[in-house]
Amino acid sequence: MFRRIVSPLLFFIVTGFPGFAQPDDSAMIRKIADEVLLNGKGMNDLYTLCKSVGHRLSGSAGMYKAEAWGVKTLKEAGAENTWLQQCMVPHWVRGQKEFAGFRTQQRSTDPVFDVVALGNAVGTGDKGVLANVIEVKNFEELEKRKDEVKGKIVFYNYPFNKTLLRGAYGDAVKYRSNGASAAAKYGAVAVIVRSVTGAMDDHPHTGALRYNDTLPKIPAVAISTKGAEKLSALIKGAYKNENLFIRTNCMMLPDTIGHNVIGEIRGSEFPDEIITIGGHLDSWDQGEGAHDDGTGIVQSIEVLRVLRTIGYKPKRTIRIVLFANEENGLRGGNKYAGEAKLKNEKHVMAMESDGGGEYPRGFSCGMTRAQFEKVQGWLKYFEPFDAAKFSFHEGGGGGADIGPLQTMFKTAQFGLNTTGQRYFDVHHAASDVFEKVHAQELNLGSVVMATMVYLVDKYGL
Amino acid sequence: MFRRIVSPLLFFIVTGFPGFAQPDDSAMIRKIADEVLLNGKGMNDLYTLCKSVGHRLSGSAGMYKAEAWGVKTLKEAGAENTWLQQCMVPHWVRGQKEFAGFRTQQRSTDPVFDVVALGNAVGTGDKGVLANVIEVKNFEELEKRKDEVKGKIVFYNYPFNKTLLRGAYGDAVKYRSNGASAAAKYGAVAVIVRSVTGAMDDHPHTGALRYNDTLPKIPAVAISTKGAEKLSALIKGAYKNENLFIRTNCMMLPDTIGHNVIGEIRGSEFPDEIITIGGHLDSWDQGEGAHDDGTGIVQSIEVLRVLRTIGYKPKRTIRIVLFANEENGLRGGNKYAGEAKLKNEKHVMAMESDGGGEYPRGFSCGMTRAQFEKVQGWLKYFEPFDAAKFSFHEGGGGGADIGPLQTMFKTAQFGLNTTGQRYFDVHHAASDVFEKVHAQELNLGSVVMATMVYLVDKYGL
Repeated sequence: MFRRIVSPLLFFIVTGFPGFAQPDDSAMIRKIADEVLLNGKGMNDLYTLCKSVGHRLSGSAGMYKAEAWGVKTLKEAGAENTWLQQCMVPHWVRGQKEFAGFRTQQRSTDPVFDVVALGNAVGTGDKGVLANVIEVKNFEELEKRKDEVKGKIVFYNYPFNKTLLRGAYGDAVKYRSNGASAAAKYGAVAVIVRSVTGAMDDHPHTGALRYNDTLPKIPAVAISTKGAEKLSALIKGAYKNENLFIRTNCMMLPDTIGHNVIGEIRGSEFPDEIITIGGHLDSWDQGEGAHDDGTGIVQSIEVLRVLRTIGYKPKRTIRIVLFANEENGLRGGNKYAGEAKLKNEKHVMAMESDGGGEYPRGFSCGMTRAQFEKVQGWLKYFEPFDAAKFSFHEGGGGGADIGPLQTMFKTAQFGLNTTGQRYFDVHHAASDVFEKVHAQELNLGSVVMATMVYLVDKYGL
Repeated sequence: MFRRIVSPLLFFIVTGFPGFAQPDDSAMIRKIADEVLLNGKGMNDLYTLCKSVGHRLSGSAGMYKAEAWGVKTLKEAGAENTWLQQCMVPHWVRGQKEFAGFRTQQRSTDPVFDVVALGNAVGTGDKGVLANVIEVKNFEELEKRKDEVKGKIVFYNYPFNKTLLRGAYGDAVKYRSNGASAAAKYGAVAVIVRSVTGAMDDHPHTGALRYNDTLPKIPAVAISTKGAEKLSALIKGAYKNENLFIRTNCMMLPDTIGHNVIGEIRGSEFPDEIITIGGHLDSWDQGEGAHDDGTGIVQSIEVLRVLRTIGYKPKRTIRIVLFANEENGLRGGNKYAGEAKLKNEKHVMAMESDGGGEYPRGFSCGMTRAQFEKVQGWLKYFEPFDAAKFSFHEGGGGGADIGPLQTMFKTAQFGLNTTGQRYFDVHHAASDVFEKVHAQELNLGSVVMATMVYLVDKYGL
């Protein structure tokens, strides 16, 4: 492109926001945006979280490093009070690197596959599992072929349906979450699950499974998408009826101590009314947990920093929460809401960013219809940032960690939404690294979050 | 993220598009989307264009390879007729790799900088230019300090203003386009222009300049953003008042022969009514011209392919045009409109994609208010793809190559708009390569383009 049409956005920004009822709000939102887009600290924070702390699964050494990082970073951002809120977290460990490969007479040249154990799964132990593989496309095929399953490894080869756009993950993740127990019901000895991603590469994507306690717990691994294609071809061809060997050494240890990391600015008028903004500090033990959920963490901290930096004095208490253990237990979210109940706190709003640090488009709003109508009255403030897309979800819609606040207090929920087409390429995989995050897109998310926090703080809900 | 809220989009897709007036249209648009998102050829086409052809500046060997690639690819996509439309194009050559560095007594250790000549610029020749550097932030500072400029190299160090979002390029590009002549007016011997990008890296971004023919033509180079920061620091510090040496061997040769590459499907009912869809086939000679404008090219070809593949018979003639020479002359766009005038063709609509292959958001619509109202009636068809953002521009808004059609025939214009925050990171630089394009985002752009073409073809404007 040589010349470029100046978009209407430029007009809004240069001339101020026409149609704004309150010139104060217009100026304040302009200040928020300028500060974040020109001097944002999100990328610096994300860099230290990804590169100095790294991944940080519940109970791991990384978790404790991340907690210390969180306290320090919240203080630097201007939090008046910071503290650790203790909660017990699951302590699942991966152990030795996983192995999966065919084992025939020609062992030395047999193909091997990129796999990782699914989170919370039992391991095979050193003896491994050696069995035939039965490939099924979905649960319907499993049901039809249930008589063939006994003693075998069930391979769920369900592709990520790109035509579903934002729905593809929800559509495919059930094989990861529930596939092990579904196969164990018919006597399978292990499962292999195609990674829940639209990317075609060599990275297996882990993530939590849930065992049905009434059924045997069998080992479960994710296989990369390229690996899934290869395995599928081989068991129809050269390795038909050959045994596959899987070895995993993961196991669940007793619960250990973790913490929600919290920092706040007390409200000047209504300090007892709490606005919670957060993401989850834990991550899977692949990659650096950059998009999941490092970006949500640093965006939340940036909300606090920018309000401090531009000199805004919140009426209500603004509390940033870096939640523990979202990935395989949700203990942090439950603890936070439980403590709030014990202390009889008043939670007026909660916001979560846990969909990656891509270009923001708006919010999922879990609240009453009356609250949503008030929020929609603010749409014009989000149009200059192309983030004026609010969707209504009565009794849902915010995010996993803030969900318990809604259940207990009916706290209004805001979940940041993004374009979201790149997030699942890296989700729970070794490719979820700092380099996959774009500074301007990350910062725009912080701007949009801080704008909504400012409006709710000033006008209530 | 562990669990994910199923968005409203999933509902639309699974249940069909509620509120569609015509069930045929709903089904047809679903077919378009499924075919492109599951079987799209855009990434394959882009790969061969980027990796087998490579960059393709007007008059270069790459231009001729690209033309042959275009004919072949249009035929493979199902074009009934393909042809080359000859036009004379500028033939600017870069020559030997550029050099810029300080030249003092300690020559061997003097700092050097990443620079590239600006397109259409005159060269210094082998003797180079050796002069003091005067840094200005903008044209206002140049005016104030005009008496200091004579005999010097003017360094425009105007940063990309990230707060302007979509307006930052338009705001900054004037120093690249007009900076040389503005400095020559006051006796400068050369200019260095900070790259027009928000990325902070070592890639200089080239692009066309325009000389004012009444003023001396002086050499002009772009410097990388990191280089600009370094140069700015050095001329205020250790290299204050030292001479900088610049050598460029670029030059403008006589015009040479190039071509628009055209492929079409003839309309079944109104074959004389032409719908033009295109991008520009030429690119700068840095990188691979992936986002600028390989993506527009392959999206345009994909529109033709998908309509053929799903068996849609257009009423009107659908013509894909891979325009020549957008970057430094616009000869292709002018030729195409000129020939249309000579042949008295009827051009009812033109669409261009030349903003990169990012996530699509909608269209800039250059048309009459009545036409725009008709187009807005179709917004609901774009909502499932999150691309229902249409902006109105009477007498503009489509794209550089299709602009002459508007001037000559008042042809309605559609310019594909995207999120656009990553495009200028790579624009006109060595980093504009295939690997920077995301398959799903590219394909969504093709879906949105094909949907609009289908609607205009079926219902007219």
